[in-house]
Amino acid sequence: PHRNNKGAASRMSFMEFPYVSGPRKELMVELVSTLQTRLATQLLPCDLPPDVQYYQNQTGTAQATLHVRSGIQSSPIDFILGSWLHCQLPSGGELNITSLSAYLNLLTDAPNFLFELIQSSPTSMVLILDLPPRKDLVLHPDYLKTFYEDTQLDRHRQLLEKLPEVKPYTSSSLYIRSVVSPTGILVSIEAQAGETERMVEIVRDHVSPIAREVLGVWLDVCVSGEREVKEPERAYLARRDQVSKSKTIEADLGSSLPRLFGQEVADRVIKALEKFYNQ
Amino acid sequence: PHRNNKGAASRMSFMEFPYVSGPRKELMVELVSTLQTRLATQLLPCDLPPDVQYYQNQTGTAQATLHVRSGIQSSPIDFILGSWLHCQLPSGGELNITSLSAYLNLLTDAPNFLFELIQSSPTSMVLILDLPPRKDLVLHPDYLKTFYEDTQLDRHRQLLEKLPEVKPYTSSSLYIRSVVSPTGILVSIEAQAGETERMVEIVRDHVSPIAREVLGVWLDVCVSGEREVKEPERAYLARRDQVSKSKTIEADLGSSLPRLFGQEVADRVIKALEKFYNQ
Repeated sequence: PHRNNKGAASRMSFMEFPYVSGPRKELMVELVSTLQTRLATQLLPCDLPPDVQYYQNQTGTAQATLHVRSGIQSSPIDFILGSWLHCQLPSGGELNITSLSAYLNLLTDAPNFLFELIQSSPTSMVLILDLPPRKDLVLHPDYLKTFYEDTQLDRHRQLLEKLPEVKPYTSSSLYIRSVVSPTGILVSIEAQAGETERMVEIVRDHVSPIAREVLGVWLDVCVSGEREVKEPERAYLARRDQVSKSKTIEADLGSSLPRLFGQEVADRVIKALEKFYNQ
Repeated sequence: PHRNNKGAASRMSFMEFPYVSGPRKELMVELVSTLQTRLATQLLPCDLPPDVQYYQNQTGTAQATLHVRSGIQSSPIDFILGSWLHCQLPSGGELNITSLSAYLNLLTDAPNFLFELIQSSPTSMVLILDLPPRKDLVLHPDYLKTFYEDTQLDRHRQLLEKLPEVKPYTSSSLYIRSVVSPTGILVSIEAQAGETERMVEIVRDHVSPIAREVLGVWLDVCVSGEREVKEPERAYLARRDQVSKSKTIEADLGSSLPRLFGQEVADRVIKALEKFYNQ
């Protein structure tokens, strides 16, 4: 992998994924390409400033990219957001996060898409894969049936949990726990010390096919499904989307970005993202 | 424990808990007594028909009691519901369920209380302990903060999950998964084969103190807290309570009661309960 020295601003692009394993890079490139191909006519180009598309800390030990594309007016896509983050840890290890999420707008009330891999050592990873609901499932059992029961999303979680390396993961944020669906995959994957090849294998043979399938369900059922939203549900949905996006960015980036990149860089990045999360 | 022969209708009462371990019986009696004492002036007597307060199947191999008390008009208590169920399994084992739940009405939007132990063998048990929210937590982070963060409910779950016998439990019903809070305790407790004393110990030393504390939080923060509910939130809450209660009874009893007690008994019991769940 490329290493940047202090000040050597050789910017890297989102689609390079320079610090992760081959199968993990292939998966990310494939998912992003699938999204961009299927939604080709609906997406505007990424217009983030260059210093938000790629950013690093002062010493170059932490680097990240951001890629955000909004949907055109007639599209149900609000925006899609991809990113990777690489950080050398004081312990000598590395933190590598790759993520891809997609948010729908008020033309539909169908669920969003969320996929994130957080690797804190060669043998330890957290996987988050879900279609977070945009309605209160307790009040709307029909919504639960359409998007979660009829699509049989739970079988992916069940398959994955059969692997001895896989354990349920509990986010420390109660809000994040509230946002995920009942079929949401939140697991930690821990291989035995030294078994770094096993992690690569699990991503290739287990995580990849499941992520592909869940993205397929999202594209087929959520993006393409006809779901007209009328008042007063529309006002309710707008408020819920807004709260959920701003609380998610707060829980996800609010504390970690300043710590990893310094306050100045963090402020710049969060400000650029707020445009999407608060619209 | 008492055993009923076929037709020998020696009715047992709810507070007897004849088929469970000493510590489990003590816990149930204590929790029910705490509730009835703290809410003494607010509860009406149980007016279920005798053949719903105690019921059994034709052969007497399955027996159960139900105890429901509604709140008086000025009370925020909708009703409290206690039950135990005992069933001899074809495998030779026993199923023993004990449960206590409490539902609030539209005078408040505070969470309900739910506690259930489902024991399918001397060394295997499922524990459900939660204050299920009555609002959409994604839309209402302030509600999440008041009832789940400020009350530090998550530390009970964390303590319990440190025991090697305790694993997260995933309900097969996606609806039940949606109903619980992010600090909800849904765990299976599995002792080693033959270690029946260890299960009794876990109930006495770990489950009991936690159940006591969670009920205390519910009484102090949820029942006693002032939470005025105005329109249009009140109409929303009424609808959500109604859907949630009827879906819960469907998921919880709809399939198991006919199987264990026969259709006739099941119909009688569910009909008597619907009065409370559908009001």
